[in-house]
Amino acid sequence: MIRVAIIGASGYTGAESIEIILKHPKAQVAYLTALPQECGQVDEVFPRFRGRCSLPIEPLDLDKLTSLADVALCCLPHKVSMGFVPKLLDAGLKVVDFSADYRIKDTAVYEKYYQVRHTDTANLENAVYGLPELFREQVKTANLVANPGCYPTGLLLALAPLLRRHLVDCNLIIDNAVTGASGAGKNPSSKFHFPNMNENIFAYSIGTHRHMPEMEQIAARIAASDVNILFQPHVGPFDRGILSTVYCRPVQQLTSQQLLQLYTDFYAKEPFVRVVKNAPAVKDVAGTNYCHVFPALVKDSVVVFSAIDNLVKGASGQAIQNMNIIFGLEETLGLA
Amino acid sequence: MIRVAIIGASGYTGAESIEIILKHPKAQVAYLTALPQECGQVDEVFPRFRGRCSLPIEPLDLDKLTSLADVALCCLPHKVSMGFVPKLLDAGLKVVDFSADYRIKDTAVYEKYYQVRHTDTANLENAVYGLPELFREQVKTANLVANPGCYPTGLLLALAPLLRRHLVDCNLIIDNAVTGASGAGKNPSSKFHFPNMNENIFAYSIGTHRHMPEMEQIAARIAASDVNILFQPHVGPFDRGILSTVYCRPVQQLTSQQLLQLYTDFYAKEPFVRVVKNAPAVKDVAGTNYCHVFPALVKDSVVVFSAIDNLVKGASGQAIQNMNIIFGLEETLGLA
Amino acid sequence: MIRVAIIGASGYTGAESIEIILKHPKAQVAYLTALPQECGQVDEVFPRFRGRCSLPIEPLDLDKLTSLADVALCCLPHKVSMGFVPKLLDAGLKVVDFSADYRIKDTAVYEKYYQVRHTDTANLENAVYGLPELFREQVKTANLVANPGCYPTGLLLALAPLLRRHLVDCNLIIDNAVTGASGAGKNPSSKFHFPNMNENIFAYSIGTHRHMPEMEQIAARIAASDVNILFQPHVGPFDRGILSTVYCRPVQQLTSQQLLQLYTDFYAKEPFVRVVKNAPAVKDVAGTNYCHVFPALVKDSVVVFSAIDNLVKGASGQAIQNMNIIFGLEETLGLA
Amino acid sequence: MIRVAIIGASGYTGAESIEIILKHPKAQVAYLTALPQECGQVDEVFPRFRGRCSLPIEPLDLDKLTSLADVALCCLPHKVSMGFVPKLLDAGLKVVDFSADYRIKDTAVYEKYYQVRHTDTANLENAVYGLPELFREQVKTANLVANPGCYPTGLLLALAPLLRRHLVDCNLIIDNAVTGASGAGKNPSSKFHFPNMNENIFAYSIGTHRHMPEMEQIAARIAASDVNILFQPHVGPFDRGILSTVYCRPVQQLTSQQLLQLYTDFYAKEPFVRVVKNAPAVKDVAGTNYCHVFPALVKDSVVVFSAIDNLVKGASGQAIQNMNIIFGLEETLGLA
Repeated sequence: MIRVAIIGASGYTGAESIEIILKHPKAQVAYLTALPQECGQVDEVFPRFRGRCSLPIEPLDLDKLTSLADVALCCLPHKVSMGFVPKLLDAGLKVVDFSADYRIKDTAVYEKYYQVRHTDTANLENAVYGLPELFREQVKTANLVANPGCYPTGLLLALAPLLRRHLVDCNLIIDNAVTGASGAGKNPSSKFHFPNMNENIFAYSIGTHRHMPEMEQIAARIAASDVNILFQPHVGPFDRGILSTVYCRPVQQLTSQQLLQLYTDFYAKEPFVRVVKNAPAVKDVAGTNYCHVFPALVKDSVVVFSAIDNLVKGASGQAIQNMNIIFGLEETLGLA
Repeated sequence: MIRVAIIGASGYTGAESIEIILKHPKAQVAYLTALPQECGQVDEVFPRFRGRCSLPIEPLDLDKLTSLADVALCCLPHKVSMGFVPKLLDAGLKVVDFSADYRIKDTAVYEKYYQVRHTDTANLENAVYGLPELFREQVKTANLVANPGCYPTGLLLALAPLLRRHLVDCNLIIDNAVTGASGAGKNPSSKFHFPNMNENIFAYSIGTHRHMPEMEQIAARIAASDVNILFQPHVGPFDRGILSTVYCRPVQQLTSQQLLQLYTDFYAKEPFVRVVKNAPAVKDVAGTNYCHVFPALVKDSVVVFSAIDNLVKGASGQAIQNMNIIFGLEETLGLA
Repeated sequence: MIRVAIIGASGYTGAESIEIILKHPKAQVAYLTALPQECGQVDEVFPRFRGRCSLPIEPLDLDKLTSLADVALCCLPHKVSMGFVPKLLDAGLKVVDFSADYRIKDTAVYEKYYQVRHTDTANLENAVYGLPELFREQVKTANLVANPGCYPTGLLLALAPLLRRHLVDCNLIIDNAVTGASGAGKNPSSKFHFPNMNENIFAYSIGTHRHMPEMEQIAARIAASDVNILFQPHVGPFDRGILSTVYCRPVQQLTSQQLLQLYTDFYAKEPFVRVVKNAPAVKDVAGTNYCHVFPALVKDSVVVFSAIDNLVKGASGQAIQNMNIIFGLEETLGLA
Repeated sequence: MIRVAIIGASGYTGAESIEIILKHPKAQVAYLTALPQECGQVDEVFPRFRGRCSLPIEPLDLDKLTSLADVALCCLPHKVSMGFVPKLLDAGLKVVDFSADYRIKDTAVYEKYYQVRHTDTANLENAVYGLPELFREQVKTANLVANPGCYPTGLLLALAPLLRRHLVDCNLIIDNAVTGASGAGKNPSSKFHFPNMNENIFAYSIGTHRHMPEMEQIAARIAASDVNILFQPHVGPFDRGILSTVYCRPVQQLTSQQLLQLYTDFYAKEPFVRVVKNAPAVKDVAGTNYCHVFPALVKDSVVVFSAIDNLVKGASGQAIQNMNIIFGLEETLGLA
């Protein structure tokens, strides 16, 4: 049994990680930590774990961590994470980090978008971007995996076949995405107060969302050329899911049939990506680690639709998929 | 034109009052006040008023109030209200107060449930309980109307015909009610954080809700005898509405037909109460000042269902209905 | 009082029209019609009208229509409408038609998208496209107004200032829109069954939505040149509203300041369009005839966000705005 | 591995059963059947199974059934089920039946509420009511388990400790319950059309719900005396969950402390019932097989709150709990 520590267990991605590991046949929740003010019995912090998990969430103790766990899922926020990850690695654990701190290789870009100096460039260099569908080989041997952002996961899976084959104009890509409200995290705020968010939908972070440079960096690696992405997120009145509608321009003529074949071939061996034949719906992937993707030709554009669960394939599920790969387990274990 | 001041215009009932008065043919929004930290242009505080109302919400100035308004809708919270209402009355205005401060005649009961001494017993004595369907005559000549609570409105309209005719056992009345989340007010909190409240329903204030003594006091006036009510509120994942399911025991035999006739007769002249022939739905009254009520015989009990909009018939609409009565206008003006 | 007939009163736009006219100070609901199988008392078909409107919905009788009404709001579906509109005009009424039958001047385009021959080209020629913000003068003298589609209203108000001033590339315009579920109409179907639609969001009519040619035709009139629009609709788990996110490319350099000024100037005298300074939210316009619009510069694109209520500014409210104009009333009457 | 056939796999409880068995370590989905018009690949009927289950749903073939499966989860509707269950038993399978056909021992009561003659009284006699918390011993040796109704599960778990100890007046029990909309099944209808059900809540089956006699029969067995239950169901705008609020009258004095102790003791060894210390929320049990129950003293009544997921503990989860028991597996397998 792989013994899993969850660092930052008091938030939504921490809870979702616990939820998945509770059903994982070869992993167990071994150690839960959070900031002191967020500690308590896990089934009091999250009543849904009553009878299912009775561990305490406690302040991080590195000795305990070393003795109790083989791997850490680090669910800390951006900027905070890079203060802890070096210690987790030093404790001898494999680490899957949920924050943006190890995703963006160019520290100048990181520092522009996150407004803070990067303090752990040594590990940043070795971190592997944990999108298994594209970087599985590197994940296998990684000590530190930077788990992708939720929106980048949706966008990159929608776009990868086109980028890899250089079929679209890399300067004209638009990602219009809608997330469920769990993406906002567990702290109450006016925007996410039920009477405000219910029956509502709106855009946010106009032109400034921090997932934009992450998308562009990884897209560029896939395309082996610069990629310019206009990313516009929105939030809608549902709990889970991201629907990405991606608009791009083909650089050569394509038929619908060719397009569908391209995607079907590209993802033929991928357990968690399903190429579908009509518009995917977030409810069909909610609570699962699957991505449903549908590429369409509309007029002279390619429009690709992808649907994921932001907390699963967009966070905890993907982290555990990465964990499975690192430990040589069947990739789908606990996730299918 | 009746010039209306709204005291406490920055909350949901304040906004709903503005919304109604904007469409009222013989009233106009004249003056909006709030605590200093809640002030600002009304259409910035509530973007839905953009282009429709451009008044400032400003700290209360009594001289301004006197010169600008004929009536005050006082939307302040419990305990705060009784500090302001005497000043509003002294300023020469009619007052419709939304708080509980003037609803409960017995100060001992008030002080038990609200945990504070009542500081305005003089006005309390003269305040009229503003449920027009039962106390219209008193409202006509009132200077101060205590606007009923949302739950008591739903319960009392469901129960009044039975109480008035002494048809049910006054010791065995249960009010099981479900409110929409707007009832919680505009301040964000964990319970009403969208990812917590969405897809959820739960009870609250078990055995302790402050509307219970209000219900019992008014029910006793209607029945001319003591009434014991077990009131249990719940909150569900929708914005507006209260569905009250009221269980009671008849003290004499009744047929369904008699029961329906009783209600139809009792409310025959009431513009805002509709006796319906099947289960009422909150969506049918949302955004209106109507109460749909349906009495049914089930086994040896009477079960009465009533539906209102908690912000309209349960608050702002009823206040404006009271205002119409006080000023001798047609009671339905601006509300039908 | 203007006497209003509603032809097709049993659907959502019919009901919304009744709702608005009930509060209109100079119009009254005079005659309601529907197909025989949809007839009945209006307050039985729509329980929300109990106590507020007690007319029957009856099969259309042209003699009755002539004697009872001055104007017909024709809420019939596409293809059906053009069979009735000539009769309504012959009966001497002004007509605001909600269908697409009189919106698309090029019958070849109409017949391609609607798969039916146009049978009333005579009236089609004289019909005025009822987007008052752009075609107010023609509406004033129209006998037949083609009320715009909901999506085109959202798109065109978002785009008009840019098109009129020739500031964007007319070949690279994308309209990514999300509507509430009321847009699907009142007939139950699997997609809109609550357990399917709730907690869901998905695209539909990929590349084929019939509002696309309508958008392009009117955009071309505004721009005085051909316009190519890629329109992609989605539906989300809320009742009302359309959020349009419109992506286009400026043909000259623009600053955010200039962009905002352009919109503010363009809509300076428009009562129902509010240029806002951040992302508009559908909940801020729900139940109103307003459009909130926000233009932003993102990287080298212009992204314009607009929010309307699909049933009000996108249908019944706009129809009544047109009616007000035709009859020389204040344009905002019953709508502010 | 236990090989599971699901009879009636095209409905919500069929799908939920598949969902659970896919994660069950000692059971596998072996055979899926439905009426001919509902057949197809399971991942086309339910896109959420794409990549996870690729079986066909096919018309029932008894030979195939015999050779492929050890147990049948029979998810057919009431009245239909009793036509198939004898064949399933004859085929040598253990059967867990989801319908009401084998729950009500008194055929006169069954025939009154279901308006049909019971055609399989032989098996009815031997069927075991599959509420493991109360009838575990009988389930162990059963060939045919009548899986309890969703509402009775919520009610009976809330009430059992009081009934067993004879602590409440058996003539004065009220069960006010609210279910999520999945309880209505997958066929679209006007009531559950999204624009009708969203933002709504209403009662239904007033005085006539078929779960009432089921509740009374089992409650009587627990109490060893007649029990009269007034059951009133409602439906609210959420997918999953039943919140039961149960009102009853103690026949002797009780303290809150004693009440809580009673429940804690009664359910001490039950894996799926958690006695909690405040109002349970349906979201805390959604997607799980748990029941959260909280008993409270309010005035002179006992009010018990219970929350379950109607599709899991109220249907498929409980069926698989029963299956685990029948096959001598750990009861929580695949469910915790």
